[in-house]
Amino acid sequence: MPRTVIRGGLVITAAEETAADVLVEDGKVAALAASGSECARGWTADRTIDATGKYVIPGGVDGHTHMEMPFGGTFASDTFETGTRAAAWGGTTTIVDFAVQSQGHALREGLDAWHLKASGNCAIDYGFHMILSDVNDSSLKEMDLLVDEGVTSFKLFMAYPGVFYSDDGKILRAMQRASVNGGLIMMHAENGIAIDVLVEQALAEGRTDPRHHGEVRKALLESEATHRAIQLARVAGAPLYVVHVSAQEAVAELARARDLGLPVFGETCPQYLFLSTDNLAEPGFEGAKYVCSTPLRPVEHQAALWRGLRTGDLQVVSTDHCPFCFTGQKELGRGDFSKIPNGMPGVEHRMDLLHQAVVDGRISRRRWIEIACATPARMFGLYPRKGTIAPGADADIVVYDPRAQQTLSAATHHMNVDYSAYEGKRITGQVETVLSRGVPVIDRREYTGRAGHGRFLTRETCQYLI
Amino acid sequence: MPRTVIRGGLVITAAEETAADVLVEDGKVAALAASGSECARGWTADRTIDATGKYVIPGGVDGHTHMEMPFGGTFASDTFETGTRAAAWGGTTTIVDFAVQSQGHALREGLDAWHLKASGNCAIDYGFHMILSDVNDSSLKEMDLLVDEGVTSFKLFMAYPGVFYSDDGKILRAMQRASVNGGLIMMHAENGIAIDVLVEQALAEGRTDPRHHGEVRKALLESEATHRAIQLARVAGAPLYVVHVSAQEAVAELARARDLGLPVFGETCPQYLFLSTDNLAEPGFEGAKYVCSTPLRPVEHQAALWRGLRTGDLQVVSTDHCPFCFTGQKELGRGDFSKIPNGMPGVEHRMDLLHQAVVDGRISRRRWIEIACATPARMFGLYPRKGTIAPGADADIVVYDPRAQQTLSAATHHMNVDYSAYEGKRITGQVETVLSRGVPVIDRREYTGRAGHGRFLTRETCQYLI
Amino acid sequence: MPRTVIRGGLVITAAEETAADVLVEDGKVAALAASGSECARGWTADRTIDATGKYVIPGGVDGHTHMEMPFGGTFASDTFETGTRAAAWGGTTTIVDFAVQSQGHALREGLDAWHLKASGNCAIDYGFHMILSDVNDSSLKEMDLLVDEGVTSFKLFMAYPGVFYSDDGKILRAMQRASVNGGLIMMHAENGIAIDVLVEQALAEGRTDPRHHGEVRKALLESEATHRAIQLARVAGAPLYVVHVSAQEAVAELARARDLGLPVFGETCPQYLFLSTDNLAEPGFEGAKYVCSTPLRPVEHQAALWRGLRTGDLQVVSTDHCPFCFTGQKELGRGDFSKIPNGMPGVEHRMDLLHQAVVDGRISRRRWIEIACATPARMFGLYPRKGTIAPGADADIVVYDPRAQQTLSAATHHMNVDYSAYEGKRITGQVETVLSRGVPVIDRREYTGRAGHGRFLTRETCQYLI
Amino acid sequence: MPRTVIRGGLVITAAEETAADVLVEDGKVAALAASGSECARGWTADRTIDATGKYVIPGGVDGHTHMEMPFGGTFASDTFETGTRAAAWGGTTTIVDFAVQSQGHALREGLDAWHLKASGNCAIDYGFHMILSDVNDSSLKEMDLLVDEGVTSFKLFMAYPGVFYSDDGKILRAMQRASVNGGLIMMHAENGIAIDVLVEQALAEGRTDPRHHGEVRKALLESEATHRAIQLARVAGAPLYVVHVSAQEAVAELARARDLGLPVFGETCPQYLFLSTDNLAEPGFEGAKYVCSTPLRPVEHQAALWRGLRTGDLQVVSTDHCPFCFTGQKELGRGDFSKIPNGMPGVEHRMDLLHQAVVDGRISRRRWIEIACATPARMFGLYPRKGTIAPGADADIVVYDPRAQQTLSAATHHMNVDYSAYEGKRITGQVETVLSRGVPVIDRREYTGRAGHGRFLTRETCQYLI
Repeated sequence: MPRTVIRGGLVITAAEETAADVLVEDGKVAALAASGSECARGWTADRTIDATGKYVIPGGVDGHTHMEMPFGGTFASDTFETGTRAAAWGGTTTIVDFAVQSQGHALREGLDAWHLKASGNCAIDYGFHMILSDVNDSSLKEMDLLVDEGVTSFKLFMAYPGVFYSDDGKILRAMQRASVNGGLIMMHAENGIAIDVLVEQALAEGRTDPRHHGEVRKALLESEATHRAIQLARVAGAPLYVVHVSAQEAVAELARARDLGLPVFGETCPQYLFLSTDNLAEPGFEGAKYVCSTPLRPVEHQAALWRGLRTGDLQVVSTDHCPFCFTGQKELGRGDFSKIPNGMPGVEHRMDLLHQAVVDGRISRRRWIEIACATPARMFGLYPRKGTIAPGADADIVVYDPRAQQTLSAATHHMNVDYSAYEGKRITGQVETVLSRGVPVIDRREYTGRAGHGRFLTRETCQYLI
Repeated sequence: MPRTVIRGGLVITAAEETAADVLVEDGKVAALAASGSECARGWTADRTIDATGKYVIPGGVDGHTHMEMPFGGTFASDTFETGTRAAAWGGTTTIVDFAVQSQGHALREGLDAWHLKASGNCAIDYGFHMILSDVNDSSLKEMDLLVDEGVTSFKLFMAYPGVFYSDDGKILRAMQRASVNGGLIMMHAENGIAIDVLVEQALAEGRTDPRHHGEVRKALLESEATHRAIQLARVAGAPLYVVHVSAQEAVAELARARDLGLPVFGETCPQYLFLSTDNLAEPGFEGAKYVCSTPLRPVEHQAALWRGLRTGDLQVVSTDHCPFCFTGQKELGRGDFSKIPNGMPGVEHRMDLLHQAVVDGRISRRRWIEIACATPARMFGLYPRKGTIAPGADADIVVYDPRAQQTLSAATHHMNVDYSAYEGKRITGQVETVLSRGVPVIDRREYTGRAGHGRFLTRETCQYLI
Repeated sequence: MPRTVIRGGLVITAAEETAADVLVEDGKVAALAASGSECARGWTADRTIDATGKYVIPGGVDGHTHMEMPFGGTFASDTFETGTRAAAWGGTTTIVDFAVQSQGHALREGLDAWHLKASGNCAIDYGFHMILSDVNDSSLKEMDLLVDEGVTSFKLFMAYPGVFYSDDGKILRAMQRASVNGGLIMMHAENGIAIDVLVEQALAEGRTDPRHHGEVRKALLESEATHRAIQLARVAGAPLYVVHVSAQEAVAELARARDLGLPVFGETCPQYLFLSTDNLAEPGFEGAKYVCSTPLRPVEHQAALWRGLRTGDLQVVSTDHCPFCFTGQKELGRGDFSKIPNGMPGVEHRMDLLHQAVVDGRISRRRWIEIACATPARMFGLYPRKGTIAPGADADIVVYDPRAQQTLSAATHHMNVDYSAYEGKRITGQVETVLSRGVPVIDRREYTGRAGHGRFLTRETCQYLI
Repeated sequence: MPRTVIRGGLVITAAEETAADVLVEDGKVAALAASGSECARGWTADRTIDATGKYVIPGGVDGHTHMEMPFGGTFASDTFETGTRAAAWGGTTTIVDFAVQSQGHALREGLDAWHLKASGNCAIDYGFHMILSDVNDSSLKEMDLLVDEGVTSFKLFMAYPGVFYSDDGKILRAMQRASVNGGLIMMHAENGIAIDVLVEQALAEGRTDPRHHGEVRKALLESEATHRAIQLARVAGAPLYVVHVSAQEAVAELARARDLGLPVFGETCPQYLFLSTDNLAEPGFEGAKYVCSTPLRPVEHQAALWRGLRTGDLQVVSTDHCPFCFTGQKELGRGDFSKIPNGMPGVEHRMDLLHQAVVDGRISRRRWIEIACATPARMFGLYPRKGTIAPGADADIVVYDPRAQQTLSAATHHMNVDYSAYEGKRITGQVETVLSRGVPVIDRREYTGRAGHGRFLTRETCQYLI
């Protein structure tokens, strides 16, 4: 395998900003040396990438994607092939997707199905979380096996009764099991039982537009469920990772728990940081493009999320990438918002949107890498293979141009979906080159990757549980 | 200058644990390479340090020492020479000491005096904070000048009326100035005005033993002052760093402020983590050894401090090293605890005590380095020169043996003080070799340094204020 | 109807302590006059009660009793006849008992059944709350009718799945209805779904003793449910009354809600104030006597409850009187704590136990009357007929001897149950004479009442919802 | 002395609303009897007041007035004669005014001076608090004497350095003394030391208008001082009453303390409930009319104050009546807001403004009486003489017409000040007749009182400290 040297860039990790050259051997980071040092100058390589004036950052780790996800009678429009390619375009080199257990079926069955979908199709490395839809004695035993094979995190739903929903007893049992086998429980925290009452009432009263999706899924019902999940985790003695936190009241519950020293973690997503109920209320049926759960919130919630990212009460930004085309998919819910498939495209834009937050002064460069690369890698047992640039790490490296200008648009994005949630948004900063295990996937803004390059990642357990 | 290679150790920084060799050139870290990689194997060096089975960590940064500090008619017993030598023995390669403005005198005068004390005497690098004892138009202007020359942090006292004390108006003015010139305000947060009433009452009632020092300096009067300092900082729009936090109620105030997203920081010290009012109450006059301010607290406060270090509500552990000999110095306060010089020795033991906390499972290895090296370096504008091991950083490196056993004792320590606060305490882990800018100061547990090697550090402003 | 004058006592209400004579005409309080005033001296009466040196207080209002309650295959051992007689002995002149809707049946059916049980049998006046076991379109409509006929409060259970349990959707719907019809939702706040998992695990592991009842019904699962009920009430825009609060964490949730100005109320019971898990852990099967839900808590929770009563975060003390004989009833759960009927006797002792708290300095005399008489009367729409001594109020009056000594015991109590939860407890203070609508029920410690004197009370809606 | 009967009104106290007739004998309430009862019908009287359709309420107790108060080189414009007459017009029958200790002088001296001002001049009864301007051994001893003579509360200032200001040590000493002698410490909680820095800066920068008075006296500096006072009270083991709370952050501090069960109390005033910084910013120099300290706050703080009155975190509404004429007094501060005498007129309007809050649905009728009559009477040791209508109480009774309409205006008010802070405000409700110890002071809206009727009240200690 060829040796590559990346010269002259500013290497940024969660902890350091270093003017260093990076040597890649055998798909791994072999060394970092001060740029211009005798040591660095002595390196020979098959390929030299000039990163002068650029950032050299770890490839992004997106801990929350749903490729080809079945939902509401249709499927998320990105396959593992199209979705991971788009991820690479956006500087993300690892995804952790969700395999789904169907009710009445074994975990194994769901996991096998997802392996089939992904295997041979991915442009970048991938792992799996497992969605538990049916907690029972048998699936609890299977959890142990999955942890052993590197599927070390398990998502439960307090929403979607009849589909993914687990009641508090099932949640408690899964948490107890995780507290023993080292698995991490991820929680979709919304009180779906109460929400479904409000949905039914809204529809009965003719409130059927997309914006009512946001109105019935109340912030208090997210924070309630967040609080409940935390208490159940305390009873079980288990850690907890709350996905797609969107409400300021939910951030407050996480902060309260963390002040007590509880091992409770929170993830948010770019859509909650940059979009709001104003989008859901766009005229006509346009709001359907922004239907996801938890829903977008009034714009004032954004400040609480940014503050949470600064204070450390939120630790991770992932995408919850789950795209559905406006035509043919989102349209299923015309006249009934409850039939709009829940989900938004985003895997391609996370690194850029967060860099924009750096430009806007919301977060530091190091915090950018921490929330988008290092922490998700640690949270999901991939560190230090992924999420950093250090000797021995996989050479998943992005050369990022902090001064390039781009405009997000469905016309130019690479996700397999017919609209952009950020149509027309201008961004400062752009991915230039992406290595996955040393292999160029994006090379000076040309796609040079291939389906099948990406490998399944057997993950360790969460590294925050010490 | 010779090239040095450190081979085979586990390099630990605030963010990474890497099996890497470290190349040192010209007193700086030139490169890190995966141990055994072709790149690393190719390195030649004048000196090779075998770190197999050892940790390779950044030298400690102790942001709070008082060498030769005048207090209560005597002086702290460590000079810059003896104190920095002891620091080196304990794996600390940088101190930031406190220059003192006397009331009625210029900052410059105090700073010059401290430069005189330190210059040519230090075994390791050193910087200065400035104690503001006399906030007025003139000293406010001088603050700007000091920031420009690398003295970028300023300590104020809410305690010690008549000596260091500043009233709330002076504090507010200094904070306002710092909010403009980028200086960091450090606060001794105790309500000294109220405490002095309690001191007087205690003495009048014959409660004169060392343990009464702890009783009159009430936890509520620490948390009150902490809260007040935070509010004044909010009014001024300035960040705040609270020194030597010891009371659980004070940690709660910091947590409350940080939940609001305020730029408020907290430091604690090993004595608060490992000692308690039980020590202050030791029979005879033994308690005098443990008299410092803020005082030691009842043992249950320790849990809150450890929790604060885990949750991030406390960010730094420094020593507040300010030793006074039992004989001749501490004894000044026999029969009147208020005459016992305030302060304890500790600069030599911080890294070891915190490693013991790693062994005991209280903190992770990376958090050890973060609170003892990386964060103080960032907080006081020394990063990435100090506090990490990365290309370009000063080669302040400690080879640490995590399995060595030692027993702390006045008989073996290197601080110039006739007692140990930790006499007989057994520690797992010991410093083996210490480099300061590439030069061995401790070499396989022999002192090889020299007075005058240490240089004055012109510091940048605090790096958390972005 | 005869005129009665009560002379020379200290009249205590929630707001006043007055040296006044009380004139009773037609079963109502006609007038209060300063003792010894010309006005008072002019009164003539058929009967004069000398209350010199005594307290003259409103009869107690016990807002939470379960006479003849079916539970776990048996019935609470007090009938309305025996239970209300015992209540009168203890100075309580009003109870509000719980009519029960069975699943699959109409509210009306349950209410009719309870009317049958009570009618003609009660020694004192009584009202009904309605337990909703089956929230559906039909029972929601019935709620409105019941409010109109004076059954203005409705209890829901978050515990007891399969029996009384309502899921969050049903709770939300009932709350929404109450927010319109003025009914008050009362909540048994324990996460029964999670508790049942812990029960099953405990039994499977052989932890079958009474004390395990307390261990599986965790305080965190009470506070979780309390928090959840509060949030659902916020979503519904409804007030909330939480019954039998026992955990300090639950008090904290109420305090948090009340600080926000939410109309949230809390009740505790004497057993939580005076007993603890120490009782549940009494040797042999003795602990079964203390099995109730929410369960008794570790003794340190008592301080939080007393504090809640002082701060106003708890407003009411009722008994949750639900006695089961040790022999034949409690014994159903030997070897399986989950089969022990849940409930304790108490209706007779509430006024005395709370007077003991006055003697012990925990609460003031006025607060005694407020939490035991005035507030429950207001809360349940009985004020000012009940709960105070004021012109126009029902003459439900107790002459209470604050200096009498008594010892609680099954040998002397009047409840129909074969044990006392307070066996041997010494109390300062005792009921001497009790009037119900002017009629002596207890006359100088002789029972002079009769079954059938007590009338059904059509209640107004809660008076705190303005 | 004549007998008076008040017939047919709705008697409202803090606890009851009763359709009752009230019999007054010897200046005291002799009896209450149900209107129309045989007992009531039998009463004969020298005078009968028909209160049909009216409220019969206790006379107001205003716990915070400053008649003839020296401030900033001038005196509050109401004398005890004019001020108490105006109070009577507004339904207030008791004031507690502040005697002032001057620095360097004895308490006795100040108290004597205030006795001289008041004696023989008051239309209604009056008591005194004592302002401590000079806490020292001698004045601490005098506190005990004053408590014995019925001056049982002592005000300290954290504001106004050089005038009334006490430092934290003096505050602590006074609190310690109060914790022994039963006195109640009242606190003006603003960080005056910090505020004076901001005042100086504002003036130096030409920000001299009245609105800058509000800007420099920041809400955070009120809540800081509130927090500090609470902590000092905890250290001293003393209760605390915080006067004129205006900032929502200060209410939050009180709520936090009360959740802990601390004996901490808060007062607000009508100006903070009904006026705001919008008034301070009125054009020209109009804003000077609204200059008082604590200052008026942005309008959003009002909601927090109303909420505090509902939740019980605030217990008392008094006026802080301290009028200065616009012409000649307020004008002293043209061009320098710091020279505007601090204070506003209000003693006449408190009962009406709070009744308007009843009409507006903010508080209940009983709460109106509680915060304006009963609680101040209890707080300041006047209960049950004052603050309620009960047998034995002083016959300080107001017949209030809840349907009358009035418009507040300087043209019609009776205070000796040339402007109204509520000019043009329409109020529903008006005082019709006022008795002071049975003597008509206002009779169907004619003044029938006289200077000298009012007597000095020797007060008991605070009744909340049990």
